[in-house]
Amino acid sequence: MTACAIGVDIGGTNIQCGLVSEEGALLWMNSVPTEAYKGNEHVMGVVAEQVDLAARQSGIPKHGMTGIGIGMPGAIDSETGVCIQSSNLAFRNYPVRERLQSMTSMPVAVENDVRMYVYGEAAAGAGQSHRNVLGLTLGTGVAAAWIHNGELYRGGGISGEIGHIRFEELHESCTCGGIGCLETIVSATGLALQAKQAVMNGERSMLAELRGSPDQLTAKDVSDAYDRQDPVAIAIMNRTGTYLGKALSYLVQILDPDIIIIGGGGAKAGERLLTPARETMFRLIQPIYHEGLSVVPAARNDEAGVIGSALWAMRKLGAGASGK
Amino acid sequence: MTACAIGVDIGGTNIQCGLVSEEGALLWMNSVPTEAYKGNEHVMGVVAEQVDLAARQSGIPKHGMTGIGIGMPGAIDSETGVCIQSSNLAFRNYPVRERLQSMTSMPVAVENDVRMYVYGEAAAGAGQSHRNVLGLTLGTGVAAAWIHNGELYRGGGISGEIGHIRFEELHESCTCGGIGCLETIVSATGLALQAKQAVMNGERSMLAELRGSPDQLTAKDVSDAYDRQDPVAIAIMNRTGTYLGKALSYLVQILDPDIIIIGGGGAKAGERLLTPARETMFRLIQPIYHEGLSVVPAARNDEAGVIGSALWAMRKLGAGASGK
Repeated sequence: MTACAIGVDIGGTNIQCGLVSEEGALLWMNSVPTEAYKGNEHVMGVVAEQVDLAARQSGIPKHGMTGIGIGMPGAIDSETGVCIQSSNLAFRNYPVRERLQSMTSMPVAVENDVRMYVYGEAAAGAGQSHRNVLGLTLGTGVAAAWIHNGELYRGGGISGEIGHIRFEELHESCTCGGIGCLETIVSATGLALQAKQAVMNGERSMLAELRGSPDQLTAKDVSDAYDRQDPVAIAIMNRTGTYLGKALSYLVQILDPDIIIIGGGGAKAGERLLTPARETMFRLIQPIYHEGLSVVPAARNDEAGVIGSALWAMRKLGAGASGK
Repeated sequence: MTACAIGVDIGGTNIQCGLVSEEGALLWMNSVPTEAYKGNEHVMGVVAEQVDLAARQSGIPKHGMTGIGIGMPGAIDSETGVCIQSSNLAFRNYPVRERLQSMTSMPVAVENDVRMYVYGEAAAGAGQSHRNVLGLTLGTGVAAAWIHNGELYRGGGISGEIGHIRFEELHESCTCGGIGCLETIVSATGLALQAKQAVMNGERSMLAELRGSPDQLTAKDVSDAYDRQDPVAIAIMNRTGTYLGKALSYLVQILDPDIIIIGGGGAKAGERLLTPARETMFRLIQPIYHEGLSVVPAARNDEAGVIGSALWAMRKLGAGASGK
């Protein structure tokens, strides 16, 4: 029988849990609310329950699984399995691995969620067959992770926080306390925010009619208005794509990836966003980087985090794992 | 006896060649003009001659050396030892390793010069005892290289070309054909260029008196005028340091290094440049990156390229080398 492991993607809103084969096939999957306000122990308990449920419903006993891989937002010390700080959850210096190992009696590996997402896309999604895979996720914010020669890059543990790269010409306040951070524009939240601002500024746009209040506008509303040729939505999407392209130009000149994968909720804008992003990126990078470089949407968008976490757990915890 | 290897730093102006022990000690060193206009074969011949000279003058025979490490500018395929493209030399798809192995009967490893410089600083200079070392060299241009968990990062082979990251608010033409590239400001050449422009614009500065023509001004002239409180030189240094700090803020948010080493000719400006660079960088990065992060000058500035190339050769070519 093929090896399998549990992959868990702990988000601010939902916890996604899946049972994944070593080939990256999803054998079982479920999603439940995180309810982070109930505290860390509650969140850990939900994960443990989901693992039991996976075993019952799949018919594969827990001892038949290699272990559990956890992807969660924030700064993670993957060697100790401690969540040092998490922006969307209340975790702070919390021993995730220790608690979950104790609750489930299974080995656990913990990593940053964006890294696990990109690891999933690299191993079993759009990045297969590439050695240097750069991935970005556009959600509440935007972050990057990459695989270098088949190895996950971590820096000192908090690499890839591109959402808080500042642009002098941007003036929006960021949740981090900074001004002009990339993610005030390039993120699902940034798209919604720009739509809100356009409506508040009285710009003539169908965005003004879509919701009861401009606060309720979403990234999807911008895509919908774009598809109906709304000029304000088109301008927002082009501006957002242009800044995504600028950020990509920096990342390419620094990291020299073979392929760039754009995922996360904000990436559901698809070519509306990727077309201006590609144009800007290719205009700004040196020609020597052009050959063979592609910018593609994620192939396993909603599942990549779960798949990546599970495959990572197999690599870290499986028979013959080096523990690196 | 301890192992040793030849390290060679091939620059546009000079070729530096050294015999280096496995502890990073420089046993012998020499510098000769590159005379690149005489062609690639000439340059290879000069390197081969220097290797013979090193053997004769040090008393260590060639067969007592592990091999030769070459650091040279441009895009290098380190697996084949081919120089794909080199901006300051005429090399283009030239088999450096093959030619030198044939000329010297010694094993040869070839890498990009900035990577070898940073490898030297990481192994035997300011980066010792750190796992994630980022280094920048400021010369004709500016480029970066880094060690991630003790391993040299290469991307697809042309990572670290930060000199050609563009800034919207900069308008200077770059040698690459782009507009507003970082290295039009942040480099030894950029410092000299800003001094020239200030004089041409009629700004009141002692820079106007230092040379017969503004074209002859150098980065060192800017440092000298700075030390004599020349306000134009101070403004140039602050502006350059500020852009260096901006670039560092991007690199920190992306790569999360433990230490940043600034080297190359332009780094001889020292604290005149590093003080505004640090201030800007720490203002722009997120607080979570602050702890333990330092920005320091290179410790073995003029020798780091030679030392790094030699230590790299020992790692790649020595007994027990994995070839990785």
